[in-house]
Amino acid sequence: MNLVSITDFNERDIIAVFQLAKDYKKQQKHKYSRKLRNKILANLFYEPSTRTSSSFAAAMYNLGGSVIPINDVTYSSVTKGENLEDTVKTMGCFCDVIVLRSQNAGDAAFAAEVSTVPLINAGDGNGEHPTQTLLDLFTIYEKFKKIEGLTITFAGDIENSRTIHSLKKVLHAKNNCNYLETYDVETLPPSDVYYLTRVQRERGSTGSYQLTKEHVDNMPKESIVMHPFPRNDEIPKWFDSDPRAHYFEQMQNGLWIRMALLSWIL
Amino acid sequence: MNLVSITDFNERDIIAVFQLAKDYKKQQKHKYSRKLRNKILANLFYEPSTRTSSSFAAAMYNLGGSVIPINDVTYSSVTKGENLEDTVKTMGCFCDVIVLRSQNAGDAAFAAEVSTVPLINAGDGNGEHPTQTLLDLFTIYEKFKKIEGLTITFAGDIENSRTIHSLKKVLHAKNNCNYLETYDVETLPPSDVYYLTRVQRERGSTGSYQLTKEHVDNMPKESIVMHPFPRNDEIPKWFDSDPRAHYFEQMQNGLWIRMALLSWIL
Amino acid sequence: MNLVSITDFNERDIIAVFQLAKDYKKQQKHKYSRKLRNKILANLFYEPSTRTSSSFAAAMYNLGGSVIPINDVTYSSVTKGENLEDTVKTMGCFCDVIVLRSQNAGDAAFAAEVSTVPLINAGDGNGEHPTQTLLDLFTIYEKFKKIEGLTITFAGDIENSRTIHSLKKVLHAKNNCNYLETYDVETLPPSDVYYLTRVQRERGSTGSYQLTKEHVDNMPKESIVMHPFPRNDEIPKWFDSDPRAHYFEQMQNGLWIRMALLSWIL
Repeated sequence: MNLVSITDFNERDIIAVFQLAKDYKKQQKHKYSRKLRNKILANLFYEPSTRTSSSFAAAMYNLGGSVIPINDVTYSSVTKGENLEDTVKTMGCFCDVIVLRSQNAGDAAFAAEVSTVPLINAGDGNGEHPTQTLLDLFTIYEKFKKIEGLTITFAGDIENSRTIHSLKKVLHAKNNCNYLETYDVETLPPSDVYYLTRVQRERGSTGSYQLTKEHVDNMPKESIVMHPFPRNDEIPKWFDSDPRAHYFEQMQNGLWIRMALLSWIL
Repeated sequence: MNLVSITDFNERDIIAVFQLAKDYKKQQKHKYSRKLRNKILANLFYEPSTRTSSSFAAAMYNLGGSVIPINDVTYSSVTKGENLEDTVKTMGCFCDVIVLRSQNAGDAAFAAEVSTVPLINAGDGNGEHPTQTLLDLFTIYEKFKKIEGLTITFAGDIENSRTIHSLKKVLHAKNNCNYLETYDVETLPPSDVYYLTRVQRERGSTGSYQLTKEHVDNMPKESIVMHPFPRNDEIPKWFDSDPRAHYFEQMQNGLWIRMALLSWIL
Repeated sequence: MNLVSITDFNERDIIAVFQLAKDYKKQQKHKYSRKLRNKILANLFYEPSTRTSSSFAAAMYNLGGSVIPINDVTYSSVTKGENLEDTVKTMGCFCDVIVLRSQNAGDAAFAAEVSTVPLINAGDGNGEHPTQTLLDLFTIYEKFKKIEGLTITFAGDIENSRTIHSLKKVLHAKNNCNYLETYDVETLPPSDVYYLTRVQRERGSTGSYQLTKEHVDNMPKESIVMHPFPRNDEIPKWFDSDPRAHYFEQMQNGLWIRMALLSWIL
């Protein structure tokens, strides 16, 4: 059982993981703290991502497992694909599950194919980042108790956002959602969810935008604002204490989702 | 409960932590090895410090907890303060206590203010390093059963030593100590404690000094020599086996003090 | 008890470690998963080696212990020997066993001498890598139930292979083995074991070689092919599924051998 793309999971799988995540969120730690005892996770990161690797590490620790952090892998001079294959097979000798962050779309699919242990894609270049998608959906689902029929506005650097691509794939495929896309935000239309992303200057994007008092005044009281983080200036700090600000909740949900996923897969 | 500056702790706090540290030092491992089970410490290091991060990691492991090592954080192009704030808030979603080593004085105070979990300052630039101060005091206290009335000689690069600044702050504030400062050591006056530090060439200091046979011959038999490490040539290796050499004892005490501190805070 | 060179172990020691490794390989995890509870291993790596450090980490976790990963040590401007000595003594204050990967032959022997806790050499420059030797021998022993009298062909960059040097040392000293050495492989003579190694271009070697269909056709059915990894093109991927390909088995054996070694030493 691997998780390379969000499309590897059907609706029933997703609901099962959400149910587990909800349980973990409610339960006391000692209830689940020995569930993955004696299991080892390898955090195989070809590019740094403190947020994602820490979230997986904490998820594994919460379930009583161990973590091998591997941050010093670099694509060496040998053919890239080969190297990844042997590294993944090597890690499979030592651990029970591999979490892979890599630099090129398709790496995770390739790695999953050759791996002898379950593999979770933690972002492969501009490919997918399915656990981010799961935690995004979970955050929306927890708030509205449904996904269907919601109006979701994506704002920011949509073209370069792996996160938004994956999320839209699910929303489009399985749900009757209205979604709007906007780059240089002038007005944000009334929505249930505002999903903002960072302008990725490192990928050649220009421009910037920022949530203003006017935007906020026009947002419905029951709406939520999400962001996959890190943020630049899109969301000013003064908004953090607004009840509609759900990005820290979203990050926290990442922990429950990854715990659910790990215990479901192992 | 945070520990940003040694002045966050009053005398009663310090004595409580010392008592705990003494207990840990005497007890057998199994007595305390489950005390922080299910707790996670994030070792958030913006600059490397093998000694300090390893000491905190070992302290947490000894108490049965887990550790997320984060060595790959770098101040990115975004406004520094913002970045630190979001990183600290993020880690607060995943862990129970944050140990922060940062590059600028004041970072730890700022981080503690925004953190949702307890934060321990493990050195913020030329600011403070309060757990070092605690282990220094503990080492002196264990030897002499008191702090008051001792004669302490500080030698070396005093101006640039965060360690000495913090230690003097406590000695000055709370105790009736004589202390002397000397840079290019010619004679070391008779003292109870000789606290030597490294000449920090990376901060522009010049000159060097070294403990000689003559110095050692003039040191009282019951005195102790301390050093926060790493050392350059200040203390030659031949002195390591002298009963007055207390710097490895001091390092070992760092473990007990950090265990005490973690269990006291959590 | 240290393991600096394979010659630190006599035949009886090696057999004892092999017996333990065999036991671990057969047993269920819960049988040994608390054996090194409350013990801490420091993975002190002065140069990166994902494979070796992960293998030791997994071995320690499997036995219920903890691991401090130290990848950020670099030889600083201070005299190298001094620095290593103090670092090793420092880590001895925090952990129960040190695994050292260093850059210069002789570092491990020096470190073991000053260390206050057991030290295992995980490769010291072009010196030795005794746990690799143990897992190599174990792999051969498991297959043939003996070492003596086997014909072993070493191929590849023999002069630069620390692995082969150490292995030959044992085979030569203790066993009546025929071994052959060959660099630019034309024909591989009939053998029990084919031990291939990488051409280490980073050490100035030139040339390359690759196992061909013809080689493989001439290999006895009961022979095995080994490789310490990483590999370049010496062994093409299509051979991986051949029953004679034993390099992943060999890697897996590294885990059992290191578990055996750690529990034997501690």
